[in-house]
Amino acid sequence: MNRESFAAGERLVSPAYVRQGCEARRSHEHLIRLLLEKGKCPENGWDESTLELFLHELAIMDSNNFLGNCGVGEREGRVASSLVARRHYRFIHGIGRSGDISAVQPKAAGSSLLNKITNSLVLDIIKLAGVHTVANCFVVPMATGMSLTLCFLTLRHKRPKAKYIIWPRIDQKSCFKSMITAGFEPVVIENVLEGDELRTDLKAVEAKVQELGPDYILCIHSTTSCFAPRVPDRLEELAVICANYGIPHIVNNAYGVQSSKCMHLIQQGARVGRIDAFVQSLDKNFMVPVGGAIIAGFNDSFIQEISKMYPGRASASPSLDVLITLLSLGSNGYKKLLKERKEMFSYLSNQIKKLSEAYNERLLHTPHNPISLAVTLKTLDEHHEEAVTQLGSMLFTRQVSGARVVPLGSVQTVSGYTFRGFMSHTNNYPCAYLNAASAIGMKMQDVDLFIKRLDKCLKAVRKEQGKESDDNYDKTEDVDIEEMALKPDNVLLDTYQDASS
Amino acid sequence: MNRESFAAGERLVSPAYVRQGCEARRSHEHLIRLLLEKGKCPENGWDESTLELFLHELAIMDSNNFLGNCGVGEREGRVASSLVARRHYRFIHGIGRSGDISAVQPKAAGSSLLNKITNSLVLDIIKLAGVHTVANCFVVPMATGMSLTLCFLTLRHKRPKAKYIIWPRIDQKSCFKSMITAGFEPVVIENVLEGDELRTDLKAVEAKVQELGPDYILCIHSTTSCFAPRVPDRLEELAVICANYGIPHIVNNAYGVQSSKCMHLIQQGARVGRIDAFVQSLDKNFMVPVGGAIIAGFNDSFIQEISKMYPGRASASPSLDVLITLLSLGSNGYKKLLKERKEMFSYLSNQIKKLSEAYNERLLHTPHNPISLAVTLKTLDEHHEEAVTQLGSMLFTRQVSGARVVPLGSVQTVSGYTFRGFMSHTNNYPCAYLNAASAIGMKMQDVDLFIKRLDKCLKAVRKEQGKESDDNYDKTEDVDIEEMALKPDNVLLDTYQDASS
Amino acid sequence: MNRESFAAGERLVSPAYVRQGCEARRSHEHLIRLLLEKGKCPENGWDESTLELFLHELAIMDSNNFLGNCGVGEREGRVASSLVARRHYRFIHGIGRSGDISAVQPKAAGSSLLNKITNSLVLDIIKLAGVHTVANCFVVPMATGMSLTLCFLTLRHKRPKAKYIIWPRIDQKSCFKSMITAGFEPVVIENVLEGDELRTDLKAVEAKVQELGPDYILCIHSTTSCFAPRVPDRLEELAVICANYGIPHIVNNAYGVQSSKCMHLIQQGARVGRIDAFVQSLDKNFMVPVGGAIIAGFNDSFIQEISKMYPGRASASPSLDVLITLLSLGSNGYKKLLKERKEMFSYLSNQIKKLSEAYNERLLHTPHNPISLAVTLKTLDEHHEEAVTQLGSMLFTRQVSGARVVPLGSVQTVSGYTFRGFMSHTNNYPCAYLNAASAIGMKMQDVDLFIKRLDKCLKAVRKEQGKESDDNYDKTEDVDIEEMALKPDNVLLDTYQDASS
Amino acid sequence: MNRESFAAGERLVSPAYVRQGCEARRSHEHLIRLLLEKGKCPENGWDESTLELFLHELAIMDSNNFLGNCGVGEREGRVASSLVARRHYRFIHGIGRSGDISAVQPKAAGSSLLNKITNSLVLDIIKLAGVHTVANCFVVPMATGMSLTLCFLTLRHKRPKAKYIIWPRIDQKSCFKSMITAGFEPVVIENVLEGDELRTDLKAVEAKVQELGPDYILCIHSTTSCFAPRVPDRLEELAVICANYGIPHIVNNAYGVQSSKCMHLIQQGARVGRIDAFVQSLDKNFMVPVGGAIIAGFNDSFIQEISKMYPGRASASPSLDVLITLLSLGSNGYKKLLKERKEMFSYLSNQIKKLSEAYNERLLHTPHNPISLAVTLKTLDEHHEEAVTQLGSMLFTRQVSGARVVPLGSVQTVSGYTFRGFMSHTNNYPCAYLNAASAIGMKMQDVDLFIKRLDKCLKAVRKEQGKESDDNYDKTEDVDIEEMALKPDNVLLDTYQDASS
Repeated sequence: MNRESFAAGERLVSPAYVRQGCEARRSHEHLIRLLLEKGKCPENGWDESTLELFLHELAIMDSNNFLGNCGVGEREGRVASSLVARRHYRFIHGIGRSGDISAVQPKAAGSSLLNKITNSLVLDIIKLAGVHTVANCFVVPMATGMSLTLCFLTLRHKRPKAKYIIWPRIDQKSCFKSMITAGFEPVVIENVLEGDELRTDLKAVEAKVQELGPDYILCIHSTTSCFAPRVPDRLEELAVICANYGIPHIVNNAYGVQSSKCMHLIQQGARVGRIDAFVQSLDKNFMVPVGGAIIAGFNDSFIQEISKMYPGRASASPSLDVLITLLSLGSNGYKKLLKERKEMFSYLSNQIKKLSEAYNERLLHTPHNPISLAVTLKTLDEHHEEAVTQLGSMLFTRQVSGARVVPLGSVQTVSGYTFRGFMSHTNNYPCAYLNAASAIGMKMQDVDLFIKRLDKCLKAVRKEQGKESDDNYDKTEDVDIEEMALKPDNVLLDTYQDASS
Repeated sequence: MNRESFAAGERLVSPAYVRQGCEARRSHEHLIRLLLEKGKCPENGWDESTLELFLHELAIMDSNNFLGNCGVGEREGRVASSLVARRHYRFIHGIGRSGDISAVQPKAAGSSLLNKITNSLVLDIIKLAGVHTVANCFVVPMATGMSLTLCFLTLRHKRPKAKYIIWPRIDQKSCFKSMITAGFEPVVIENVLEGDELRTDLKAVEAKVQELGPDYILCIHSTTSCFAPRVPDRLEELAVICANYGIPHIVNNAYGVQSSKCMHLIQQGARVGRIDAFVQSLDKNFMVPVGGAIIAGFNDSFIQEISKMYPGRASASPSLDVLITLLSLGSNGYKKLLKERKEMFSYLSNQIKKLSEAYNERLLHTPHNPISLAVTLKTLDEHHEEAVTQLGSMLFTRQVSGARVVPLGSVQTVSGYTFRGFMSHTNNYPCAYLNAASAIGMKMQDVDLFIKRLDKCLKAVRKEQGKESDDNYDKTEDVDIEEMALKPDNVLLDTYQDASS
Repeated sequence: MNRESFAAGERLVSPAYVRQGCEARRSHEHLIRLLLEKGKCPENGWDESTLELFLHELAIMDSNNFLGNCGVGEREGRVASSLVARRHYRFIHGIGRSGDISAVQPKAAGSSLLNKITNSLVLDIIKLAGVHTVANCFVVPMATGMSLTLCFLTLRHKRPKAKYIIWPRIDQKSCFKSMITAGFEPVVIENVLEGDELRTDLKAVEAKVQELGPDYILCIHSTTSCFAPRVPDRLEELAVICANYGIPHIVNNAYGVQSSKCMHLIQQGARVGRIDAFVQSLDKNFMVPVGGAIIAGFNDSFIQEISKMYPGRASASPSLDVLITLLSLGSNGYKKLLKERKEMFSYLSNQIKKLSEAYNERLLHTPHNPISLAVTLKTLDEHHEEAVTQLGSMLFTRQVSGARVVPLGSVQTVSGYTFRGFMSHTNNYPCAYLNAASAIGMKMQDVDLFIKRLDKCLKAVRKEQGKESDDNYDKTEDVDIEEMALKPDNVLLDTYQDASS
Repeated sequence: MNRESFAAGERLVSPAYVRQGCEARRSHEHLIRLLLEKGKCPENGWDESTLELFLHELAIMDSNNFLGNCGVGEREGRVASSLVARRHYRFIHGIGRSGDISAVQPKAAGSSLLNKITNSLVLDIIKLAGVHTVANCFVVPMATGMSLTLCFLTLRHKRPKAKYIIWPRIDQKSCFKSMITAGFEPVVIENVLEGDELRTDLKAVEAKVQELGPDYILCIHSTTSCFAPRVPDRLEELAVICANYGIPHIVNNAYGVQSSKCMHLIQQGARVGRIDAFVQSLDKNFMVPVGGAIIAGFNDSFIQEISKMYPGRASASPSLDVLITLLSLGSNGYKKLLKERKEMFSYLSNQIKKLSEAYNERLLHTPHNPISLAVTLKTLDEHHEEAVTQLGSMLFTRQVSGARVVPLGSVQTVSGYTFRGFMSHTNNYPCAYLNAASAIGMKMQDVDLFIKRLDKCLKAVRKEQGKESDDNYDKTEDVDIEEMALKPDNVLLDTYQDASS
């Protein structure tokens, strides 16, 4: 509503009330102006009213929402379904242009602003989360793996001779495939066992660099966030190697934004050595749906090169999700989530420790891993080969999601490469174990339910081991109310194995 | 509601009415069952009520929506903002898994079903649109360019020696960049002028194949939908060349699904020769937001290979959009849109012909292009060098979107390659021209407004050419109501040039 | 977004694009300004984008949406559920104040504007629909019956001696109860049969007026829209009687806005005689959910008196519904609906005529009823007493809603008054019949399905009459696809009777 | 989805995952079944997913959502705007029937169930809130005032001679008008001052009953929730008088559900004497939009009589709002809100006490009022006549809503009755004062902001009193951040006076 509208309004209802309403409007506008001018995440989250006003205002700047528009092109932002239009707040044109995913679209000033602001907010949050000297970043509507691929494809043009990527082993398929898809040969560096922890074998890395020759190496591809007992790579030392040998360094920081430790490692790596880009998942760090990642780095022009490497327009959906989320939370809200995650990590850690001791198991000592925990399943494994996977299956049917049992000796071939001890990040970890993690958004109730169900499952598996089949289980358990719907039907073991990989 | 709930309902209100309501429910369920069993697009579109019921039912099968779920993993589908959760109908887990974008997710049975069904529906529509023998396809949450890149990256593993991609020239940046991004060298084949049309130079293609050697050629990358006066490539003949020399053939069918001609070309190409995959945009063919594409092909296992090449999970958002759209439209609704598009093409063609003659211009004769038209801007170009771009700028500020003026002699460098006569698909087209297209969803009102505004702009440009500046224009024009907000402010010419590329 | 925000936007993306977006915004604002200044229904419907912007702008003028508000009263517009807040577009304060449902609320300038504008738009539409000299009206969140009650309660204060309301009989419970609830004694004037039509007995009315004495009569309560073979009351003549004897006249125009004939009657009545208020349903005339009515009249101050009679605030929900609907349709859209309704009336009339003749029945000749039709059920009634209600029951289970069978001789007592021949508006109509109506929003498909199903039911009832029970029916009928879910289960006859009253 | 659909789903994705999803669905269904069977508010609030599933399931039982429905009546639940349909979850038919607002609609089994369940839930909550022996209640889509009118209109039929309603004075317009609208003469009983409190003058009531004669009295109309220093009426004693003289007793319990004291009074009154019905606002007690009330009582058949007195159908919107709200909160959530309100009352009380003492004012001692507080404005009033209203105006412009200043000596005429000392519930309260209340949903932040702003306003008013105009004010105040938009513009005093009445 403009001035004339308010004036007309004053003739319909009392001027004093309209003026008060008009004043109130200004406070929404004030927040919007601050956002556009500063490009920073507001400290306090916006309420839905301001948020929707803002999105609405942006959307009507896109040509598909012009009241007088006539479109005679092949791509005019027409939408067949009003449900679809509405769920995208009428942002239809996506982000970016043929040449560059960060470019401005003439047909879509609103979507372009949305894209710019989102990237600006995300940059602000990355700094706040610990990487203070980050220079640039952008949201890309692809998951972490494909985003890593895009980084590698960009590097290819700068390193024509390169064939190899040096990769300290982490048993997660998509980061491995990201290298294969980009057309490079991963050179797997096995981890070394230090206490219970699996850590980067720096000597092996450097030896390999010398053996293959720096020019033939596209980059070192390191990892921060990972399942215990693997811990984040020794980023500082790797960064120094990269600097010394002139090799690019790409960091897979998949769910590391939520951990100040992971972020600190990246900050330090960049300070003392070389990090070209670090890639993180949107969904895992910002509690949005799967499908986006952030590519960030310390050199503005390299990040721009990557963004120019994406051919064509792209979905604005992940950007929109993270924009809504960050404006709703505010930086204070996000900080609170980070703090709570840390507290839940301690709580989970304590609870799991207590439980494990009751079963003569042990929480592995992995102080360098700030997110994931591992507890041994020795006694289970000793008695019966399949007991470990059976435990996984039982947890799955009891609606415990994300717990991962890792049996010994599993072998898997991925894109032609064979991994012994797959899932454990090493050929021969000393024992089978179970993983649990404290990720952003976890609640105390999650922990309590998990501990309770794990307790029951362990009890049941034990009983069975002494005796015979899974059938007995049902009768002996006293089912409680929140588990009423969850009878332990005989899910095939391979179902579970599939689920946990 | 289950049987017990209905029984309880009968005690609260009359059993006869509840029974009637219960019967009514069955007809919704019937439609859902048919969809799941047949995997085909329903003939008649569903109403919103059935659609939302279906989405709701799928969503509650995902673990993040389990009432008793406890999550202890790093990716549990938690959502911070209820606005975000709601706009995704609570599908948070995305589609695919580490290894394969088409794979089923244990944590997300609902999302997995959504993905399968969407791909199945889309396959059905591709057949209906003319490619009857298509074997498999999948929706990928990346735009056409990046999807082409994925195809090329997949082929790399099958053709280790390949360095080149043979590419009949089309002046659109993202399909060119798709090859660069994948790390290949595009070999540009200039088009030949036949009458007004620019067509594939088959001899040049074959000569190049022989010159470079088939093994060194990753594939031929042809194009169907394009701006006139270029017309769809001679797919049949190219497909035969591919078959003869054992070279893969990837077709950029960006907005070709909407045209039976483009689809027929693909069907014929596959019949007489070789087509490995054809890629089409979701937004341009299905009236959904930008951000998705369909990769389809005639060999099931090759399409699966591509889908396995995508590392990691991906956004379900484009799949959800196209699913909602197709279920809302039904196959009849989609066919109706195709029919109306064809009619609008004739109408646009006639109207533009009439107008052009009034200005001593000519509609170029491009019968092989079923979507795009071009009308000469000779008289404009003769008088004043900048008149052509000025026309473009004027159309832009008058909210005509998608019209593209193509001046002579524009030179552009893309990723190190220099294109003369850029935008016109050839080094030296005989004249400047203006493009307009009849794309799916276009309305008669779009055409009428376009013709009216073009008329005014042409008149204004002419006047000015006889005289002096743009300022006069404003006063001489009788502004009509739907253009009230659109004063011809002095937008810089380069703004427009930027906009139309 | 204000000027500073746009300026900031221009620094983020190209100024030319932002300016274009800003221009586009102005066209939305222009529409809003026009609405507020003129208070008339726009000719062309608004698109959702403008509509939601408008509602959003209004809502943020209410104190519950002020960012800095602190509430220390007992009614602060707090909402517990965000679903609820959202579905009301955050209008929480309702409309009106303690003293007057049309009054302005200091705490809620936006809701107050909404209320004023809605009433203004509705007034505009009433004029457009035929009552050109209407002086004032307001939307009240009560259905027609209760709104009539409110009119009667208002009149009570002006006519302290009055005890009776003169009421030409119409067999619809809520308008009868509206008088009882208000505490008056309805004086039923039986209709006279003219041809097939039941019409107002003017002589009886006047005789009753004289008999009771004008001062003891609160008002004449007449009716326009009604089920055939009753037709709208002779409003002109009644209005003249009212004028002559100084008796108020309240017209129940429940679903009469959709018929130019009904509206014309009111206009004429007011011109030649006296009409104090006419009351119409929101849902039946404007295709919104049940729950609101419009009280309108020719004397501004009397309408204001009624609005002041409503004690306390009221729900804004019906006002919001009709506002959204009218802005979406525009006056052109509403006129189109009126035109289509008229056409459907002819179509229904023709189809039902044809069908009735095939069964030796007859469409009753009721030219004065512009909405409802009646077709005789003589042959059915002759054979078997219960056949008529059975037909009704069969139609009900076949999802024909709104068709009403009227058997002979039904007797009903309402609030102590006994009506013979209830449902037929007279003690002894010559034959049983079936009603169908062409109401606003009806589609040709409704008519076709109805005729088809009626045909089948008539056939089935006949067969049975020759033979035995309903059970046979099932087997002889060839069920078609759209009826698949609808098996003719043995619904009790009284179920249907209940349903049709 | 039915069994066949799940089976089809199992063929598309792994059976184990579909089965898990299917199990998950059962827990939603379980909650729905419990609700329908028990009719009680669930202890724990439902999540949105269950809630929307439930509403969706109900809605598809209404005939307007039948896929095969054909409507040939005058009221078929057609909706012109999809925005409107959606915001009502496609419940279009409203609640009730011609004869009875609680009756079941044949065309709308879903809406009918919604209505029944809502009433059942609300009954459960009223018991929980303290009126354990309530027999029946129903939600009516009218605000408290009109609902009281409906009660009086119902009583009229049982007490033909009655003309008067005995009403212990409370200065709130709509409850006064509720009697006028119903056509009765209010007999105002002035309150007596006991300490600071204004309480029911029982002797005056009984004397009036004897004077007028019980048969001529429709009922006693008492009040619980009210602004201090008035306190809830002596319900027990009034109820005993009613019982003794055989006079009905209607209690205005407008916002009393939120206070255990008010509810206890009603419970006690009914135990020891006579209460026929008690009426409460939906919005004030359940944090939903304005527009609904609950009519409850201890005699099932009397409550049914009232519900049958409402002529015609009615809006389902208030019922839907309260249903959504209660299912979201659960009884635990509602209890928590009640508890927090009580705590806020203490907090507000303490803070306001402290502040008042700093200004030589006094918190009035009104221990019987559990919701509203009053603080003297003596020093203000002494200096300058208009200072009290000026304070109100300043608070209003500073976005303090709900604070009410009550000057001495204000006179108001309502429907012909003149009230001296209007707003203070008595002709001559000893001093001017300011009201603030702790209502359900109030936050500590509301209290803190209020105290802060009140402090500033008091300071400013004082300064001015010593000196000259309002203009100085602006400069002397140090504006803080949350008040940035709120400049103390010179709002006319009568604006405020209007606002606070």
